[in-house]
Amino acid sequence: MSEIKKSVFDAMPQDLSDEFFELIAGNDEVKIERIISRGHTSPETGWYDQAQHEWVIVLQGEGEITFADGRIIKLGVGEHINIPAHCKHKVSWTKPDEETVWLAVFYS
Amino acid sequence: MSEIKKSVFDAMPQDLSDEFFELIAGNDEVKIERIISRGHTSPETGWYDQAQHEWVIVLQGEGEITFADGRIIKLGVGEHINIPAHCKHKVSWTKPDEETVWLAVFYS
Repeated sequence: MSEIKKSVFDAMPQDLSDEFFELIAGNDEVKIERIISRGHTSPETGWYDQAQHEWVIVLQGEGEITFADGRIIKLGVGEHINIPAHCKHKVSWTKPDEETVWLAVFYS
Repeated sequence: MSEIKKSVFDAMPQDLSDEFFELIAGNDEVKIERIISRGHTSPETGWYDQAQHEWVIVLQGEGEITFADGRIIKLGVGEHINIPAHCKHKVSWTKPDEETVWLAVFYS
């Protein structure tokens, strides 16, 4: 977590049978994560119902988030949304033929 | 700060005589900012000496950060570093002919 540079596009996981989550900075209260999907939807059943707010941006590829109230938001490169705590949502689609790289910031 | 999507590449400022800072999500303790530079270095004199940690990534263009201990780190698209609180630094160079888009997360 020091001043060493890394790239969100390097060290892509070889095995993407599951979605890939990596903590890249933060502490007990704030987490900055890189998430890599290829055709994944998540969670497999039900909704994410998170105690923290989540700000998320797509840095490569394309993904779609569906909210429990029916709204569907498609995110391409550079597009971001803020998902308040306990706002139920799921990743309903990601590009099947390319890694989608997300950056997520979880905060309270 | 709700679930409305925006893009970090939209609504680029017309006037870039000064570096452009925009709060895009967060609260009193965590700030997610978009910063747009074109040939800027900052601060004009001295160093940034921040009370919070700063995690920063380049999303377009290229920039260079110099630390008070002499290290120089060049960041291209997708590259990121974490700058601990009170680690003195400055933006010593950004591309002169293109907007450099940074995303910064300030946290304690």
